[in-house]
Amino acid sequence: MYPPLIQKLIKQFSKFPTVGPRTATRFVFYLLRMGETEVEEFVSLISQLKKRIKSCSFCFNPFEPVQILPGKISADEEGKNLCLICRNPSREKSLLCVVEKESDLASLEKIKKYKGLYFILGGNISSLRKKDFEKLKINKLIERIKNPAEFGLRDADFQEIILAINPTTEGEATALYLERKLKPLNKKITRLGRGLPVGGELEYADEETLESALEGRK
Amino acid sequence: MYPPLIQKLIKQFSKFPTVGPRTATRFVFYLLRMGETEVEEFVSLISQLKKRIKSCSFCFNPFEPVQILPGKISADEEGKNLCLICRNPSREKSLLCVVEKESDLASLEKIKKYKGLYFILGGNISSLRKKDFEKLKINKLIERIKNPAEFGLRDADFQEIILAINPTTEGEATALYLERKLKPLNKKITRLGRGLPVGGELEYADEETLESALEGRK
Repeated sequence: MYPPLIQKLIKQFSKFPTVGPRTATRFVFYLLRMGETEVEEFVSLISQLKKRIKSCSFCFNPFEPVQILPGKISADEEGKNLCLICRNPSREKSLLCVVEKESDLASLEKIKKYKGLYFILGGNISSLRKKDFEKLKINKLIERIKNPAEFGLRDADFQEIILAINPTTEGEATALYLERKLKPLNKKITRLGRGLPVGGELEYADEETLESALEGRK
Repeated sequence: MYPPLIQKLIKQFSKFPTVGPRTATRFVFYLLRMGETEVEEFVSLISQLKKRIKSCSFCFNPFEPVQILPGKISADEEGKNLCLICRNPSREKSLLCVVEKESDLASLEKIKKYKGLYFILGGNISSLRKKDFEKLKINKLIERIKNPAEFGLRDADFQEIILAINPTTEGEATALYLERKLKPLNKKITRLGRGLPVGGELEYADEETLESALEGRK
């Protein structure tokens, strides 16, 4: 019905998160209406993304490595595979915060209160299927807690592991599983506090949230 | 917070229809997780889109012109700027169906009942602002009804103009405006029938739909 090229692109966009075939179609027609130079810029940004963005060797946070000028030897050659957070000497090297995904890390960084390091787990256990467990970087997390120096963090020695996993059903399952896996390491393991969100009303809070709020009173 | 390249791409995706900054962020991380070759294929599809998809010179339907081998003279050189529908000799050249957008044309084509031609208006009047009227191809529509041959359709002579505009508030306003503009051409102007959708229930139909259904009884 649509030309084959448009159909192919609709199929590609349909694979994007939250996008169905109808929205994908709108995306393609949006691109068709876009100016020539705008599309070129957009396409070049995507091409650069895969080439220039690297995953931090310690925490898996995506970052853009600083270009080292040819001929100039960088004094910081060692930290070149680390993201800006892991490379920052003023971050507390005794705190490790485990998050599900990149945007959770970004949310925590935005409040500018947490000074420790991070680890991006790569998702949660949503179906208890084997592939769910495989995509989680649990073994990588354990390796990094045991021996941070091997992954580029020379002076780290974690005392506390904060499981900043979403308090959803899937997140709860993930956190319980993680706690069991991390127990043999003998580190202090904490979770984010639960209770009423700021601006929330008791009347509309669900039972579990109210229960957590009551337990967590201070 | 995110590397500048990621931020730029989030900004670009946020301009897509139905996409906000949060979904745009998910898109970028989806692209980061995609395989190298997959991203290359995706990027090349978008680049080809702008280069290979043309807008039909008569109806503005996007189409992929057939590649004419160099040295080989096509017998159909004349119709090379027309889409497959406008070029099809078996379509009724006396019927013109005006739709808001490309996907509306696709929906009508899918039912395989309409044998006439189309015209894509390019939107509707949603705010009564000047730019709304400018983006609609009303003058182009009038030119094409008056003189189809000038736009590549030699044997067309429209007897009926079907306004297949969405029966929404914006669509109604657009259709009324169009009707007024097309009146001097002295063609039969019709609208799509309104009433209960198949599978719909009287109990849940709004008043206007019920009224239309009653008026349109047969």
